[in-house]
Amino acid sequence: MEIIEKKDLNLEMSRHSLAHVLAKAIISIYPNAKLAIGPAIDDGFYYDIDLDKSLTNEDISIIEKRMKEILNKSERFVKKAISKEEAKKLFKDNEYKLEIIDELKDGEEVSIYYLGEDFFDLCRGPHVESTANLQNFGFKIHSVNGAYWRGNEKNKMLQRVYVYAFKTKKELSDYVNMLEEAKKRDHNKLGRELQLFTTVDYIGQGLPILLPRGAKIIQILQRFVEDEESKRGWMITKTPFMAKSDLYKISGHWDHYKDGMFVLGNEEKDKEVFALRPMTCPFQYQAYLNQARSYKDLPLRYNETSTLFRNEASGEMHGLIRVRQFTISEGHLMCRPDQLEEEFKSCLELAIYMLKTLGLYEDASYRFSQWDENDKEKYIGTKEQWDEAQSTMKKILDHLEIPYVVGIGEAAFYGPKLDIQIKNVFGKEDTLITIQIDQMLAEKFGMEYTDKDGSKKNPYIIHRTSIGCYERTLAYLIEKYAGAFPLWLSPEQVKVLSLTERNNDYAKLIAQQLKDEGIRVETDLRNEKIGYKIREALNMKIPYLIIVGDEEEQNKTISIRGRGFENKSGLNLSDFIIRLQNEIKSKKI
Amino acid sequence: MEIIEKKDLNLEMSRHSLAHVLAKAIISIYPNAKLAIGPAIDDGFYYDIDLDKSLTNEDISIIEKRMKEILNKSERFVKKAISKEEAKKLFKDNEYKLEIIDELKDGEEVSIYYLGEDFFDLCRGPHVESTANLQNFGFKIHSVNGAYWRGNEKNKMLQRVYVYAFKTKKELSDYVNMLEEAKKRDHNKLGRELQLFTTVDYIGQGLPILLPRGAKIIQILQRFVEDEESKRGWMITKTPFMAKSDLYKISGHWDHYKDGMFVLGNEEKDKEVFALRPMTCPFQYQAYLNQARSYKDLPLRYNETSTLFRNEASGEMHGLIRVRQFTISEGHLMCRPDQLEEEFKSCLELAIYMLKTLGLYEDASYRFSQWDENDKEKYIGTKEQWDEAQSTMKKILDHLEIPYVVGIGEAAFYGPKLDIQIKNVFGKEDTLITIQIDQMLAEKFGMEYTDKDGSKKNPYIIHRTSIGCYERTLAYLIEKYAGAFPLWLSPEQVKVLSLTERNNDYAKLIAQQLKDEGIRVETDLRNEKIGYKIREALNMKIPYLIIVGDEEEQNKTISIRGRGFENKSGLNLSDFIIRLQNEIKSKKI
Repeated sequence: MEIIEKKDLNLEMSRHSLAHVLAKAIISIYPNAKLAIGPAIDDGFYYDIDLDKSLTNEDISIIEKRMKEILNKSERFVKKAISKEEAKKLFKDNEYKLEIIDELKDGEEVSIYYLGEDFFDLCRGPHVESTANLQNFGFKIHSVNGAYWRGNEKNKMLQRVYVYAFKTKKELSDYVNMLEEAKKRDHNKLGRELQLFTTVDYIGQGLPILLPRGAKIIQILQRFVEDEESKRGWMITKTPFMAKSDLYKISGHWDHYKDGMFVLGNEEKDKEVFALRPMTCPFQYQAYLNQARSYKDLPLRYNETSTLFRNEASGEMHGLIRVRQFTISEGHLMCRPDQLEEEFKSCLELAIYMLKTLGLYEDASYRFSQWDENDKEKYIGTKEQWDEAQSTMKKILDHLEIPYVVGIGEAAFYGPKLDIQIKNVFGKEDTLITIQIDQMLAEKFGMEYTDKDGSKKNPYIIHRTSIGCYERTLAYLIEKYAGAFPLWLSPEQVKVLSLTERNNDYAKLIAQQLKDEGIRVETDLRNEKIGYKIREALNMKIPYLIIVGDEEEQNKTISIRGRGFENKSGLNLSDFIIRLQNEIKSKKI
Repeated sequence: MEIIEKKDLNLEMSRHSLAHVLAKAIISIYPNAKLAIGPAIDDGFYYDIDLDKSLTNEDISIIEKRMKEILNKSERFVKKAISKEEAKKLFKDNEYKLEIIDELKDGEEVSIYYLGEDFFDLCRGPHVESTANLQNFGFKIHSVNGAYWRGNEKNKMLQRVYVYAFKTKKELSDYVNMLEEAKKRDHNKLGRELQLFTTVDYIGQGLPILLPRGAKIIQILQRFVEDEESKRGWMITKTPFMAKSDLYKISGHWDHYKDGMFVLGNEEKDKEVFALRPMTCPFQYQAYLNQARSYKDLPLRYNETSTLFRNEASGEMHGLIRVRQFTISEGHLMCRPDQLEEEFKSCLELAIYMLKTLGLYEDASYRFSQWDENDKEKYIGTKEQWDEAQSTMKKILDHLEIPYVVGIGEAAFYGPKLDIQIKNVFGKEDTLITIQIDQMLAEKFGMEYTDKDGSKKNPYIIHRTSIGCYERTLAYLIEKYAGAFPLWLSPEQVKVLSLTERNNDYAKLIAQQLKDEGIRVETDLRNEKIGYKIREALNMKIPYLIIVGDEEEQNKTISIRGRGFENKSGLNLSDFIIRLQNEIKSKKI
């Protein structure tokens, strides 16, 4: 059923009122400063100001102090309506406000808000009554960045003062603590420290290099996903990563997605123009098209560990979450109308099974992404087709009791989507998994089946991923587990440390036995202090350490250190192997 | 040790003499025909002729008959030396011969060969004494194709008459039979019939689509290779398929390989130009470069199931053997000089293990690919560096007693290679596996290690593949086994056929039990005659068929049909499963 996202309008108003308090504080200290705009945002507000001097930490303390003084004076916010002409006079020295005023319709009323008697600002409002209402607020100027006026790099760069603002001081400190914790888990930092991935300038942005530890996790995930899909009746394909423009012209990507694609060659000059694929759909359809199909053959389910390319803008790229090349657990399913709900459900069950196995399910929420009928150019098909596809999808979602938020204008250009969203450690939401219903592309590609009555029909197509992009999934796993992955996913599961060089042969023997049992094992036989060797292994978040010295060697035992496991000595290796194998097999999280 | 390839010069001379017999026959039938060139080739010879009429099968019979008459007359080949001017007069009506004569140095002697008294041709010779020497020959005109004069599409298209020619009629018929057999095995035909792959015009040439049956084999091979490499100490990476031109400028590919690459963007217009990678080397080097390395860390072995792109010319592409995108079992190994031979040997052992496991080893031969010092532009590095790298490699190959043929000018631009060659079913040789020694790229990319004495050194790099390109390997496997793959590689291992629809539930039960044991199993429960169902399954080369009817169902048994397995009834399923599992585990070929 649909969930309506509620905005806390009161909080938003309070934050924006605080922005005026900041503005007044700044003007009182720097009378020549010009104010631009100061909206509320998710965790507070910002104000863009034009000021000759770069604000230092010391300046910021002074501004914060002045803000507190204003709050304590319980000054009132008072609205005054004026004409456009009056407004232009009032703000004649501020080109930013003038630009805003100029964009208003002639004759439109302009409002300014006084804060106390000595400060006013151009503003639509509304505001709280008085700064007394804001006295319990917790706020903190946390950064000052450069920002072009109106985001256009041809304009002047202003100083954007960012402020956290929450209803209470406790809420603020909780938020700041959460951010501190999040920074430690940030996959873009921790993932590099743990040698999971790196990036290199001369290779390019958004093109991460998965180092052996990261590539091993992806290998494990891919095999797990492919095997699970195979059990559930999906047949694997391996299709090319590029095609002639002809293909994208049929699919509609050439008209609707070309800017997001990497194109090879020039349509005017070259006989053949290729493009790297941003999706797998029409490639995988070829498996369907390879034979004549009957209603008895359906559903047909094709999966692929598929690499895609999207020409993201430089500023959009982030670690493993937003990249230019990624590998996705892709799948397309062709079915009859009477099979659609059951098959949609099984796709959703598979996705949920994956999220639960990885421990990410509790962080997930659903979006029902629909078209925007006021922006028809973005989509193929008629209003009737969209209404039918969306009402079919709504019926299925409601029947399955999926709680979703509606996202208008977020559909694929060929059909509506159910998006499974995950928040990263900083609270930013991204789509991890998507399941889409498409009744348009089969016709474009001439995909048919012969129905019972001998007539030719186009199948419904479900586009879906079961675990999403592997790179993005890895990013979420790093943040979720702060790098301490479940044993079955750990690149190294056990590290064997020798206490002294005397014990190196015994350590090697132990490691070999673990390896023979299929455990991923490393050794550290360096002539270093054991404390140093242990610290290094714990920093790399290796689940279990086996430490062997003279005592262990004589008694043919091992000592263990591990997560959620008290340090133990005198253990028998084969007992420990059984314990490890059980933990791996159960995919314990 | 080096093997010198011997050409059978006598056979070559005889074939070329037969080309004159063909030419004489044609001229005697079509006096206006103009002869162009007629060289000997691997299985006979061809002659390019300019003739208004397209030769039909009937014409060919007449030409062959006339050739036999000439042979039976025991006509003599007689050389006559003439001047360039005389030659120009003699051939004044033949623009092809005139062009050839024009290219000779002034004053050079020109030779013509008479065959009998009524025919001569411009020719360097040598020739057999008389057509009596050719009377035992088996020959057959097998095709007439269009061919541009001198291979240039701006020139006139001539008719190229292809002729098989062997020393005896028996040899000819053996060869023709071999070709018939080969055609049945041709992966480009059989691979499509067996639904292993397809190609699609609007996607493009050289971009095969692996259908579920083909993709399954590749999946099995990839996992097998990755696991075997892991056991042997290789660490997996996953690196991007494209990079900025900056990378290729460092590696030398921009200067030495740009024409073979797919470039995205335009250097003059775009801020960033990317190119799809034709190799993995500098991408994988980043794993080495991610940390400081000591001599104790070496060797470091990185493997990757890596996709590469090469912009092959349209005419070069062939099925799965020569394609524009392929996936290769790539690897780079960094080591110290004292480790080089041992590591080279272990790379070679891995390759041989792979070839033996797949049953391809007996079809393999070795080429030692060296640089061409007369074509220095193609390579980086100095003569001294090449001499050292090649003599190091020669020493290793000789020490390992590898029998190799030398290929001058076939080295990579950065170092010499050992190529393992495989012949396809038509006898055409291609490289499947390559192992290269490189002492140049480490320096270019600043890869170093700290040696015992504290000095910084560049490691040796071995570039190698363990099984080659998966697409190409699949092509050879299709041809080697005529599609009847070893059980462990078969996309479906068992098919369960119901004798009547009454037996469908029992068939499903059997299939489920096989599936539970990890066997790849399909069912055929259609209401069709059992003979039809069996034929269809045998055509798809499915290793084992289980047939179940009322009798099997009552007795809880199965009946089997399979390769190298007499038809058997009354079998116990669990015994059969053990048999299957043993066959799979042993990777029996």
